[in-house]
Amino acid sequence: MSLPRGFASDNTSPAHPAVFAALLAVNEGAVPAYGADVWTAKALAWFRSQFGDDTETFLVWNGTGANVLSLRAMTKPFSAIICTEPSHINLDECGAPELLTGCKLIDLPTPDGKITPTMLQLAVRGVGDEHSVQARVVSVAQSTERGTVYTSDELAALCFAAHDLGLLVHVDGARIANAAAALDLPMRALTRDVGVDILSFGAAKNGCMGAEAVVVFNPVLAADMKFLRKQSMQLSSKMRFLAAQILALAEADLWLANARNANAMARRLADGVRGLPGLEITQPVDANAVFVMMPSEIVTELQKTFHFYVWNEKNGEVRWMTNWATAAEDVDEFVAAIRGALS
Amino acid sequence: MSLPRGFASDNTSPAHPAVFAALLAVNEGAVPAYGADVWTAKALAWFRSQFGDDTETFLVWNGTGANVLSLRAMTKPFSAIICTEPSHINLDECGAPELLTGCKLIDLPTPDGKITPTMLQLAVRGVGDEHSVQARVVSVAQSTERGTVYTSDELAALCFAAHDLGLLVHVDGARIANAAAALDLPMRALTRDVGVDILSFGAAKNGCMGAEAVVVFNPVLAADMKFLRKQSMQLSSKMRFLAAQILALAEADLWLANARNANAMARRLADGVRGLPGLEITQPVDANAVFVMMPSEIVTELQKTFHFYVWNEKNGEVRWMTNWATAAEDVDEFVAAIRGALS
Amino acid sequence: MSLPRGFASDNTSPAHPAVFAALLAVNEGAVPAYGADVWTAKALAWFRSQFGDDTETFLVWNGTGANVLSLRAMTKPFSAIICTEPSHINLDECGAPELLTGCKLIDLPTPDGKITPTMLQLAVRGVGDEHSVQARVVSVAQSTERGTVYTSDELAALCFAAHDLGLLVHVDGARIANAAAALDLPMRALTRDVGVDILSFGAAKNGCMGAEAVVVFNPVLAADMKFLRKQSMQLSSKMRFLAAQILALAEADLWLANARNANAMARRLADGVRGLPGLEITQPVDANAVFVMMPSEIVTELQKTFHFYVWNEKNGEVRWMTNWATAAEDVDEFVAAIRGALS
Amino acid sequence: MSLPRGFASDNTSPAHPAVFAALLAVNEGAVPAYGADVWTAKALAWFRSQFGDDTETFLVWNGTGANVLSLRAMTKPFSAIICTEPSHINLDECGAPELLTGCKLIDLPTPDGKITPTMLQLAVRGVGDEHSVQARVVSVAQSTERGTVYTSDELAALCFAAHDLGLLVHVDGARIANAAAALDLPMRALTRDVGVDILSFGAAKNGCMGAEAVVVFNPVLAADMKFLRKQSMQLSSKMRFLAAQILALAEADLWLANARNANAMARRLADGVRGLPGLEITQPVDANAVFVMMPSEIVTELQKTFHFYVWNEKNGEVRWMTNWATAAEDVDEFVAAIRGALS
Repeated sequence: MSLPRGFASDNTSPAHPAVFAALLAVNEGAVPAYGADVWTAKALAWFRSQFGDDTETFLVWNGTGANVLSLRAMTKPFSAIICTEPSHINLDECGAPELLTGCKLIDLPTPDGKITPTMLQLAVRGVGDEHSVQARVVSVAQSTERGTVYTSDELAALCFAAHDLGLLVHVDGARIANAAAALDLPMRALTRDVGVDILSFGAAKNGCMGAEAVVVFNPVLAADMKFLRKQSMQLSSKMRFLAAQILALAEADLWLANARNANAMARRLADGVRGLPGLEITQPVDANAVFVMMPSEIVTELQKTFHFYVWNEKNGEVRWMTNWATAAEDVDEFVAAIRGALS
Repeated sequence: MSLPRGFASDNTSPAHPAVFAALLAVNEGAVPAYGADVWTAKALAWFRSQFGDDTETFLVWNGTGANVLSLRAMTKPFSAIICTEPSHINLDECGAPELLTGCKLIDLPTPDGKITPTMLQLAVRGVGDEHSVQARVVSVAQSTERGTVYTSDELAALCFAAHDLGLLVHVDGARIANAAAALDLPMRALTRDVGVDILSFGAAKNGCMGAEAVVVFNPVLAADMKFLRKQSMQLSSKMRFLAAQILALAEADLWLANARNANAMARRLADGVRGLPGLEITQPVDANAVFVMMPSEIVTELQKTFHFYVWNEKNGEVRWMTNWATAAEDVDEFVAAIRGALS
Repeated sequence: MSLPRGFASDNTSPAHPAVFAALLAVNEGAVPAYGADVWTAKALAWFRSQFGDDTETFLVWNGTGANVLSLRAMTKPFSAIICTEPSHINLDECGAPELLTGCKLIDLPTPDGKITPTMLQLAVRGVGDEHSVQARVVSVAQSTERGTVYTSDELAALCFAAHDLGLLVHVDGARIANAAAALDLPMRALTRDVGVDILSFGAAKNGCMGAEAVVVFNPVLAADMKFLRKQSMQLSSKMRFLAAQILALAEADLWLANARNANAMARRLADGVRGLPGLEITQPVDANAVFVMMPSEIVTELQKTFHFYVWNEKNGEVRWMTNWATAAEDVDEFVAAIRGALS
Repeated sequence: MSLPRGFASDNTSPAHPAVFAALLAVNEGAVPAYGADVWTAKALAWFRSQFGDDTETFLVWNGTGANVLSLRAMTKPFSAIICTEPSHINLDECGAPELLTGCKLIDLPTPDGKITPTMLQLAVRGVGDEHSVQARVVSVAQSTERGTVYTSDELAALCFAAHDLGLLVHVDGARIANAAAALDLPMRALTRDVGVDILSFGAAKNGCMGAEAVVVFNPVLAADMKFLRKQSMQLSSKMRFLAAQILALAEADLWLANARNANAMARRLADGVRGLPGLEITQPVDANAVFVMMPSEIVTELQKTFHFYVWNEKNGEVRWMTNWATAAEDVDEFVAAIRGALS
């Protein structure tokens, strides 16, 4: 019934016990709906403690909602949003960004999931030309969909280039905790402090049941957000239950401990298989993903016991994700199975 | 901090303890994401047991999402959606239906929150005229935003008239349980069996933390739903936690017990104040709402201690909502306070 | 084949001969596309001469395009647009305003096609409430769809009330020339000078083949217009042919002469039938429309020979439109026929 | 003031004298608006004579309108539209396709403006996966934006592959006449007969003032078109003036003569410069465009006297367009100037 040996996605993980404790703690009596409760106030205060006092945060249901809401706040219908080809907003949101914003997505091919300042400069064209959509946002994932992590210098350079081109910067931080853990930096140091304008803060993949947040560093961009959230169907009535999940992550930096475990398990997995004949690790293992090329018959064999996805149907590359709940034994069993299958 | 004496909304209520138990029960190990898990399968099976074997159900985050998703499945961008003036889709969703469907809402004034076949017939015009939006859906709430409940005969007549006009019927069932409890009928008897095409099934107001469902009785309308759900940002990754909430309601008909309590408490409240000088109950108390006119200074006085809303700013009418968690003592204290204030 | 006795619409009229002359005059050689030609520059200069030096004008294809473009420039997707129930944007544009803006239209019933400041104040609600669309524009027609004309005082009062409520004012001026002729005032005196923010300037109904303009008085609202026009599919490649039509209207104030004829013919028609037994004129005949109640068998009889529409299918009210090309003899024949049918 | 030596675009050309004659011929008296007139009936009959008796045609204002309307008729909001990177719908419509359809455009890089069956097959992915947009349309230009022309065999193979993948085929025929002239085939032979579903028929670039048509070969796709046209702001009130332009092109196959001249002038131009040192023709000159690489200082020099565009800002490639009105002397003067500049 369950999938104890799953390396398919960080979404397959259960919720952390602390999340349940937090949910129970807020379940007393009647409180105002739609976020006018004390628990939500505490959760928003935590975001200010992490990202700065004038940060404005909006709790939402899920990552697609957080991304779309961020993009809606940054664009007009004739804007263009620059992103990577494998980005979640481009491939995995069923066109929600286009439908909700009206904008065109300009997707850039990228070997490692990252956008460089030069790539960005080449992608911007037709500025001021009424026939052309007008580039307005660059959206990057941190950590990326390829398991890599931008250094804070890389992000700073990208933000500088973006702002210089008149663009705003959105970070899809479905795995922002993994990036912070990887870089051993406060989340603020790799978002607000390097020039990011809005962050989609991920919680579901990092131990929650279902909760995310849009974290706005540029106050101008927050002005319409409450209306955009409601119109985007992302306003929870019983908001305390979203807030509680955030408070669980906040307590004793559980968000960081969870991310560290996920990252460590990915490294353990990569270390366990690196150099095996017939297997090639195709991306740096910066965070909690391992990308691998190996013979398709081995893939098929392993998938009988372990749950993971073929990332690229064209070349057979596979993706292994670890998460907050992955145990060393899970990894070790998987490594053993891979070694066995390859030998 | 909490609002023990709240009559503001059924959204102010906590979650039922059984919901927590159900959430804990599904929190074991890794399971496939996005609904391909056994708990979701069980929840969908429960909907089939309630509404018929070929019912297709889609779990979503919230009521606005359920309504918009239903309407998207039923319309084209040049369609019109007929509803009541005070309906949630018209007043309380910040234009989400218009944005996501592209459609015009035609809102009908109504004394009691209901639409009659005659009202519907008068509202349809310009059929086949390219200058005019084309009426395609009538959306009604059951129970209504005015606390009234359509009889199954009323709904059958409306569905017949709608289908005769070429319209589909959507029921906003944020409080469908309250309607079923009020009529003492299975939910199926007041939806599918009378001709309803799609139901927004409400769970959050009836004891859950945050979960709703789109229940499709007309299989043709389900064909695109999975794409529409994802594109509408209503697909949960860790779906088991939505499913668990539904399973809690299903167990031993908790949904019905919760609704019965809410309705009984509204009747108790209405009975406690009916006939008081200076106070007028303005709507039949069919479900879990009591609408009242009374002097504005009394309203102001009561609001110092009790949480409830002025429904109509123009005439001062107020709304008192009860919910699954409302206790008889809560009502009795409120009644005593009202009596005291009025005397 | 043609309809020499048509009172159906000002759209049934041919183009004025001067329009053809102007079109021929611009048909020399190659000129830059999309409006970067001298004829377009001259047309825009004429608008500045009429409405003020900092007026920004955008030529478009048709009235629906002009209205939608105006509304797009004034709104965000969660805005509401207040209009009259019988307004063109509400009834006759097949939902284009909703689809292109995402907004809700709030349509007010009105006896004479006009909105008063009090009606406007009552229509604005839920300000700042995230659940509610946010009223942002009031759109009025001048002359109205009911053939009435706002006095400049009425419009000034409405604009004052609108701005006081934080709303912008759009005028659907498909028949702005008729209103100016009726009031014997420059067009500026009934638009910009009384506080209007954007005008849809009508040309097609007033003697052109197909051309309209969006005239922006509030420069802030013009900033995105070129992109909005292109994205709204309203940018003509061979713009000189739209410009030529405007230049024809401008020459020797043809626009005014055309409108005066249309208005005079409506008055002649009204005067010719006023007081006839069995016939009631239901609206003031301020501009070029006459609304009449008369027995349905008479309507049917007259429609065998004359082309006109039943305006209101519920009560049988009919509408007679005159236009720039309506001749006194056309009217006199029609009057004689009506008199004959009624006697 | 005018640009007698323009090679910038076919949109810079004047209207053909026959168009004026046709416009005058329809300018008699009142006729029903919105297309219910005899001239429109004649124009639609001409399309049936060209494309088959059950063809349904909808006259519209412009090419962007025709393309967007076609795409709206073929898609749902979660569909994807496959096109080439340099296609008009991708680069030159300011995001109108995305805004009006809600769809994602998947743009394929292409050396010669064409899509092959293999390219198409590789572009389709995620079929049935709710996270992914669902490919539904392939849109190709004929002749292409690179001046090339698909053979009818190439188009037949592409249509076969598309239908096999469950896709519909749209042809952006802004220059369909040039393609038919180039192939010396009836327009039907390169559209309907090879499997195309909807054609955007171009008239403005081929001698008209402003008129295009959506020509539907698959009757199912025409069902909603009249509503889509009106809602897309592409319904002309005085439709006879669009119809007249089509009738002018139809008369004695003026459409073909015009296209042949444009194509011949492009060949004359290419022949005149081919092989010159420092100049490279980069695309086959199939229709009425010549793409050339030459030193940027020569480009700058020539642009002082002749109007044409740099097509690719990155590599300096320029585009020369000819049109129905281009004269041999215009070409010869240009060739002489180029030769002079290069020597």
